[in-house]
Amino acid sequence: MSHSQALRHYHDWLKDAHAMEKQAETMLGKMADRLQHYHELKFRIQQHIIETRQQQNQLENILNRYNISHSSVKEVIGKMFAIGQAIAVSFAEDEIVKGTMSCYVFENAELASYTSLIAAATYVGDKESIPIFEQIFEQERVMSDWIFSHLPEITNKFLTLSDQQSIKAKL
Amino acid sequence: MSHSQALRHYHDWLKDAHAMEKQAETMLGKMADRLQHYHELKFRIQQHIIETRQQQNQLENILNRYNISHSSVKEVIGKMFAIGQAIAVSFAEDEIVKGTMSCYVFENAELASYTSLIAAATYVGDKESIPIFEQIFEQERVMSDWIFSHLPEITNKFLTLSDQQSIKAKL
Repeated sequence: MSHSQALRHYHDWLKDAHAMEKQAETMLGKMADRLQHYHELKFRIQQHIIETRQQQNQLENILNRYNISHSSVKEVIGKMFAIGQAIAVSFAEDEIVKGTMSCYVFENAELASYTSLIAAATYVGDKESIPIFEQIFEQERVMSDWIFSHLPEITNKFLTLSDQQSIKAKL
Repeated sequence: MSHSQALRHYHDWLKDAHAMEKQAETMLGKMADRLQHYHELKFRIQQHIIETRQQQNQLENILNRYNISHSSVKEVIGKMFAIGQAIAVSFAEDEIVKGTMSCYVFENAELASYTSLIAAATYVGDKESIPIFEQIFEQERVMSDWIFSHLPEITNKFLTLSDQQSIKAKL
């Protein structure tokens, strides 16, 4: 059986993953820039931005191997979407809580994408790429777990500062 | 210290959670209606729609206890968003994969919301509601895990059917 259709989907998903990491960089960058009083979160996001750029390079190597162009409309839309979301959330009084949740949700979108991508790479026989996806998946999982485990503490700090009428609550 | 600000945020988040479950029902309903050849997924979603309706009732009881109206603009926007997303995804050739990922991502948005809501309920002292949020959280976690563990299999089935040029691949 020919894998022509599967390969086509696999290549599309590779491009999607690359566009997603570009979107992640924009979203995380906007958030890190805005944070002022949630130092631990800011630091963790800055760390993850470095990982995100490495992941982009790793995906670009795979795309290059298949001769697939990775500067696409998808990436532009993804970045615009990330900026739009950052602006929308910035109007919210509870920006820190909504922003943290958005990061967590985005990490989980990435986890789903890499899980599907590993299944697709296995199907089409791209054995070389699987360890790369697994490594990226692991970085996303660690980041996702970190955010999730810190969400109660961030919520608590936000509510405490809100009750103190502190302008530090928001970001 | 007065909890006036925290209570205000807590009540807003309760309304958000209710609107989110309305959105979930719309999204899951559209997806279950469209699925034709992914029987196990369709059945699991139908099960979760029943849970989602129960969760709506549980949240309504809490909102009623606080005398908070739950028919709001947020719910209308949430439902419209769910319908819009279903329409957008329906144009994709790989609708089944993108739709399954969207469900997973949505479940994780719910997990983040209930985690934050439990922290907020603890902060404002609404002890009565915590076990309810914990129970809902557990249902979402089980659903999230189910989708995640079935995503490779769904991806694989989609690619196999695509290669066979089967019209069954899409849904």
